[in-house]
Order: sequence, then C-alpha cells, then structure tokens
Amino acid sequence: MQLINNGKTKDVYKLSNGNLLLEFKDDVTGKDGVFDPGANEVGLKMEGAGQAGLKLSKFFFETFKRRGLPTHYISADTEKRTMEVLEAKPFGEGLECICRYKAIGSFYRRFGKYVKEGQDLDGFVEITIKDDSAGDPPISKSALLMLGILTEDEYNMIIKLTKEISDIVKEILATRGLSLYDIKLEFGKDKNGDIMLIDEISGGNMRVYKGEESVTPLELPGLLLD
Amino acid sequence: MQLINNGKTKDVYKLSNGNLLLEFKDDVTGKDGVFDPGANEVGLKMEGAGQAGLKLSKFFFETFKRRGLPTHYISADTEKRTMEVLEAKPFGEGLECICRYKAIGSFYRRFGKYVKEGQDLDGFVEITIKDDSAGDPPISKSALLMLGILTEDEYNMIIKLTKEISDIVKEILATRGLSLYDIKLEFGKDKNGDIMLIDEISGGNMRVYKGEESVTPLELPGLLLD
Repeated sequence: MQLINNGKTKDVYKLSNGNLLLEFKDDVTGKDGVFDPGANEVGLKMEGAGQAGLKLSKFFFETFKRRGLPTHYISADTEKRTMEVLEAKPFGEGLECICRYKAIGSFYRRFGKYVKEGQDLDGFVEITIKDDSAGDPPISKSALLMLGILTEDEYNMIIKLTKEISDIVKEILATRGLSLYDIKLEFGKDKNGDIMLIDEISGGNMRVYKGEESVTPLELPGLLLD
Repeated sequence: MQLINNGKTKDVYKLSNGNLLLEFKDDVTGKDGVFDPGANEVGLKMEGAGQAGLKLSKFFFETFKRRGLPTHYISADTEKRTMEVLEAKPFGEGLECICRYKAIGSFYRRFGKYVKEGQDLDGFVEITIKDDSAGDPPISKSALLMLGILTEDEYNMIIKLTKEISDIVKEILATRGLSLYDIKLEFGKDKNGDIMLIDEISGGNMRVYKGEESVTPLELPGLLLD
C-alpha cells in the first residue's frame, strides 16, 4: 500500500486493486485555534475528529448512493478510520464547490454591500480554485471555460449536483433541528470521464448551527447519527 | 452649479439643464507612488493628469459616438478640464467592467496556477463591484443576478458593450504601435433605462505598453493624439 498524498486532513494510499484508501486524521482546518471549513491551514487538532469525519462521510455517501447520486465511495471502516474510494481525476488542479444558505464567511466579506450578514440564500453555488497561495479564489463560469478547467456541460452538471447534494444534507440536518449555513463539495471524474462526488462529507466541510450556536465537527455525529 | 460628488479623480457638479459636469483632477489611482488603474487609493498627483485624461476621454467618446455606441458624453472643454455628460443611474452601487488582453494584475494573482504571467487573453471580461473596503471583489454573473444588481439582459448587454468598446480602443492604440493590456469601463442607465458607457476613458483606466515599456497616463495623449 503506497502513500501517494499526505493531505491536510487525510492521507491517501493507492491499493493494489487500483482504488484509493483515505485515512482520516485528527486535524481540522482553521485559524488561531478556531474551526473554519473555509480556511487553508490546519488550525487545530481535535481528538476523535478523524473518526467523526469518517462516520459522517460513511452516512452521507451511503445516503447519496441510495438516492442514485454518483460518488467515489466504496466502503468505510470507522474503527480503522479508512475509506475506500474510486480513483478520481480532478478538474484542473482541483475545484471546490460551495453551496450557501446564509450570507456569511467570504461571501459576506465580498458582497456585504448588497446583503445583510446571515441573510438567507437559496442554495447559492460558487466555485473556487484550490490554490493556497492565492487564497482559494472564486472563479466564474466564463473563467472556468476560458481557462479550459471545465467544459460547459461539466460546469452545468457540477452546479446541478452541488445543489442537489447540498439540499439533501440540509434536509437531513433539519430533521434533527440543525441548520446548514454552507457546505463545500468536491468533484472529480472517474476512469470513464463521468463526474462524481469525491473527498469527504463531514462536519469539517460545512457550517452547521443549532439555534444560535455553531456545531463543531466533533459534535455533529452525536447530534445527527445517535 | 452644485457639487454633488468629490471623487478620487473627478469632482461632479449638477448643471441647471439636468446634466452633470465632470471636473478632472490631477490625481491618479495607485499605491506607494506607482500608477495602478486597479488601485483604490489616490496614490499620486501628476501635473497635467486631469487635462490628459480629459483629452483622451473626449477623443474616445467622440469615436464611440461616431460608431453608434451609447455613451453619456455630450461635450468637453479641455482648457477648463470639464466634460458635460448625461446623468446616469449606476447598477447597484456601481460596477466596473474589466476587459483583459494579457494575464496580469489581479487576474494573474488569482489564476496564476492556470496561466503564465503576461499570457495573451482574448478580451476576457470580468465584472467587479465598487467597494473599497472589500477590495473591489470580482462578481460572477450568477451572483449579479441573484443579488438583483443586473438582469440577465443587462448582463449580456454590458459584456457585449465592454468587449466591443475595448476592442475599438485596442485597435486605435495598435495603429500607434501601442498594446492594450487591460481596460476598465463603467456603465449606467439613462433616464429611459437604456445602458450607456459612463465615467472617463483615459490612461487612468487602462494599462498600455509600448514594447516592453509601460506608458503612463500622462504620456498617452502625446503618443496617441499628436
């Protein structure tokens, strides 16, 4: 089993069957000790974060699979903190798709002239490029097409899937009295070029609130799965 | 004549006939004494910049008018450094439309992972919102529509006009051996809601090169008009 990437929150191994094994770590992104799914740095270590992230990913990916949505998920071992997935080719050097239900974070910092902080958004989707040194900048459809990162069909499919998947997460959270403020998804292509949801779906890539209180990635599995 | 806005590079007066009078100042945007059309601050004072900006604006607006393009321009007095224009309603609290022929400036800072610095771009148009405190962030078509800043028709018209007008400026500069790297335009609506080009068209809102050398706003009229 060969380590092919030592990531911020996961290590990635290549399996002999051609699939990948993701090993979840106890690191979460943030800054100055405060959790922030939009941050680039590993800001803090949370004992149990890896297992919490994997439990949620397993739950969500199995839900999406049942609903016929394309994902890279094959199986998960929550004790070993590993998830087996299909190998995926990223778009360009990697994109992140953010679905927003509240005007907060970088959206509010950019467009605060036109929205109130915390104002409802109807699942507004934005795409950013993965580039730590440039601060993961947002990128428009026209720039994605012009730079050859996505075709128009790929763009439309990714926007549609982001909205569909995020809406499912939002509904599931709502059944437990939890509010989804925003969520970050990643997509890749399988060996046939078909688009699928990749990475993880956990408290680490979404902002969740219970009433006025922010729910941490560690608290989420208990509130959602028990 | 009532002063209605004390701007970074122009003062704006309301005339008794309902039109506006723009008085061009000798200030240009930049930072630390270096001219930068993308900057928010008035970085330096250049003796003669106001008259240079007005001479070019007069020349370009009269060219656009002859070609049937909609502008706010009525007349200009280069001695008095004033330009009479139609009153315009901005989109939202103001947008800037950038047409890019070279990957430089903020485009390169954001998308340097996908382009070489200085690489040719085919008149790629981006829109930013005017908001100094947020650093004039780029805004996508979907955000412009969602926030109610533009309708889809207005968006399409503004992109089309930006490309058309910028291409004309680029061609005119080329006849004098000058290269247009990027240019920033502004649009507004007249009293009937029709879209027109507003603000100024001068060395202050474009990056121009002669070979490897950057052309300053003060040098441009001499190179272009004499």
